[in-house]
Amino acid sequence: PAVHRIAVIPGDGIGREVVPEGLRSVRRAAEIFGIELESEQFDFASVDYWQQHGTMLPDDWFEVLRGFDAIFFGAVGWPAVVPDHVSLWGSLIQFRRRFDQYVNLRPVRLLPGVPAPLADRAPGDIDFVVVRENTEGEYSSIGGRIFDGTDRETVVQETVMTRTGVDRIVDFAFQLAQRRGGHLTSATKSNGISITMPYWDERVAALAENYPDITVDKFHIDILAAHFVLHPDWFDVVVASNLFGDILSDLGPACTGTIGVAPSGNINPTGEFPSLFEPVHGSAPDIAGRGIANPIGQIWAGSLMLDHLGHPEAAAAIVAAVERVLDRGDLRTPDLGGTASCEELGTAIAEAI
Amino acid sequence: PAVHRIAVIPGDGIGREVVPEGLRSVRRAAEIFGIELESEQFDFASVDYWQQHGTMLPDDWFEVLRGFDAIFFGAVGWPAVVPDHVSLWGSLIQFRRRFDQYVNLRPVRLLPGVPAPLADRAPGDIDFVVVRENTEGEYSSIGGRIFDGTDRETVVQETVMTRTGVDRIVDFAFQLAQRRGGHLTSATKSNGISITMPYWDERVAALAENYPDITVDKFHIDILAAHFVLHPDWFDVVVASNLFGDILSDLGPACTGTIGVAPSGNINPTGEFPSLFEPVHGSAPDIAGRGIANPIGQIWAGSLMLDHLGHPEAAAAIVAAVERVLDRGDLRTPDLGGTASCEELGTAIAEAI
Ligand SMILES: CC(C)[C@H](C(=O)O)[C@@H](O)C(=O)O
Ligand SMILES: CC(C)[C@H](C(=O)O)[C@@H](O)C(=O)O
Repeated sequence: PAVHRIAVIPGDGIGREVVPEGLRSVRRAAEIFGIELESEQFDFASVDYWQQHGTMLPDDWFEVLRGFDAIFFGAVGWPAVVPDHVSLWGSLIQFRRRFDQYVNLRPVRLLPGVPAPLADRAPGDIDFVVVRENTEGEYSSIGGRIFDGTDRETVVQETVMTRTGVDRIVDFAFQLAQRRGGHLTSATKSNGISITMPYWDERVAALAENYPDITVDKFHIDILAAHFVLHPDWFDVVVASNLFGDILSDLGPACTGTIGVAPSGNINPTGEFPSLFEPVHGSAPDIAGRGIANPIGQIWAGSLMLDHLGHPEAAAAIVAAVERVLDRGDLRTPDLGGTASCEELGTAIAEAI
Repeated sequence: PAVHRIAVIPGDGIGREVVPEGLRSVRRAAEIFGIELESEQFDFASVDYWQQHGTMLPDDWFEVLRGFDAIFFGAVGWPAVVPDHVSLWGSLIQFRRRFDQYVNLRPVRLLPGVPAPLADRAPGDIDFVVVRENTEGEYSSIGGRIFDGTDRETVVQETVMTRTGVDRIVDFAFQLAQRRGGHLTSATKSNGISITMPYWDERVAALAENYPDITVDKFHIDILAAHFVLHPDWFDVVVASNLFGDILSDLGPACTGTIGVAPSGNINPTGEFPSLFEPVHGSAPDIAGRGIANPIGQIWAGSLMLDHLGHPEAAAAIVAAVERVLDRGDLRTPDLGGTASCEELGTAIAEAI
């Protein structure tokens, strides 16, 4: 079997604490399932790098990284030192765009043994995937400011949706729904965002004709967010624009107890460029350096990575190990109401694979 | 005391069922507190009206309505007949804009006796107000489509924020925080929406200097939505753009059990134009005509209206009656897990005032 080459980018804050734990499980699963991995670690896409070089990435980052099969990413940003839009747009957002990782896959599952904020929900009740558009939409960089510093100061920013951009993400979501429960929910706001969101609805309706066996529904983002809390069992695959997907994929994990467990696959489905796997959470300056971060989001991201590289059994074994350790109930990080360290939980999960 | 003139617009669907219940409580409170009210009911801003006239509103709506002291509004829209962006932009959004109702005030409170979806939360734990910008931002109508029907089809829509628009809503929120718990949370997404949201942050920071006694924090909308579920007790006043406020003010009430109880005040603080009071929920075609809608959102909207008209005691009496009836536990609409009708619950609340 081919050797998979992994670029490891811990980034900032708790990214540096959880990445080693993610790698621990990935390596253990690789060993057990006979997968050959080679990894190389990079210090760019971090605020330290920025302080030394004045940029987040070296000039040749694109060429360097594109040779890898996948990128295993921690978290980036340290707002007290660099504004988020500099650190993030200078690294993570670049990766997503330049490597055309147009699918952001964010599974949401209530895991056993996690104190859930929702009353009367058990594992199995919450099990869906948010499929987020990852390259266009509300995250454009088109716009600007006029009449600066005066009473007439006005700022505009454009949301841009293209036929290509919308169709490919919606199509991916339909295909995923076909492999899962056959149910697709589209997040919209066509009653308020009156130009782009009706277009989104129109493309969902057009593509639905190719998937007559899939049940399709749509909700405006306001009531959809409410339904995540009130009826999380209603969802199977949820497809959403860049911004709406961002919101739903923090809200969904919160409904399962913590965003610390949620993984994110930034996927280039054509395979032309490497895909990037990261936890949904950020660098969390407030708890960084204390060894108490929850490593599960990163470990689960490792599982998504192995799945993407063609190893579904190894991927499933990692998630099963996470569930087994959580179910035991004695090892939990503080966000889950326990006192375990990041390393303790990470080690236990790797050993349970 | 002056007579208050109220324009009553039931609109569509359950709007027609809940408005009479809202009026029942408003009239009862007025009677008890010696408030003189005169009301006139209008059939426009409804899909029936649209079917007869081809528009949602008569030509002279602005002149007709501006003579009133307040508008008591139900809900509008019936997507099977008229697209939402026609019915809503042709009525509700017109009112908000033309009457410069730039504040959308949406209190969120966990009421007694309501089965809450969040584990271990009691009344008192959730008690905050979402202050939503109500005239600009993401709800612009600027933009369009190019290369229609081709592979290159591209749709753009602009978000527009003005100094005036942002400052006045943020200032209102600071003042409200001063009268409440002294804590303001700003909803942002300046790490992703890289032009308008950093401007929002900048204005919040600038205005904060006028309110040194207020504790200010900000969260990106993704993690803020998560915190609504995980830490609803963290919030006092939450200020948000038009879209973010829309999302948070459905999500907040969902965390208290149902959006059926949530009210919305669309307020023109200068008093130049009438303010509009409505429930947060919509016309709900799925349950319309069955008499099972929850009237509390509309009744609470009536309380906001009396407060706005200068009658805080009457307003408080209505909310107290809602709490008393819910606390009794025997009368609940189906959304709250009971079997009471809209009218039964509405009548009981009015009698409890
Ligand atoms: C119906 C829709 C246009 C409206 C909005 O988004 O403002 C509604 O959701 C609300 O919150 O009042
Ligand atoms: C950090 C930020 C730019 C990013 C996003 O909004 O995409 C993050 O929230 C995420 O979800 O990956």
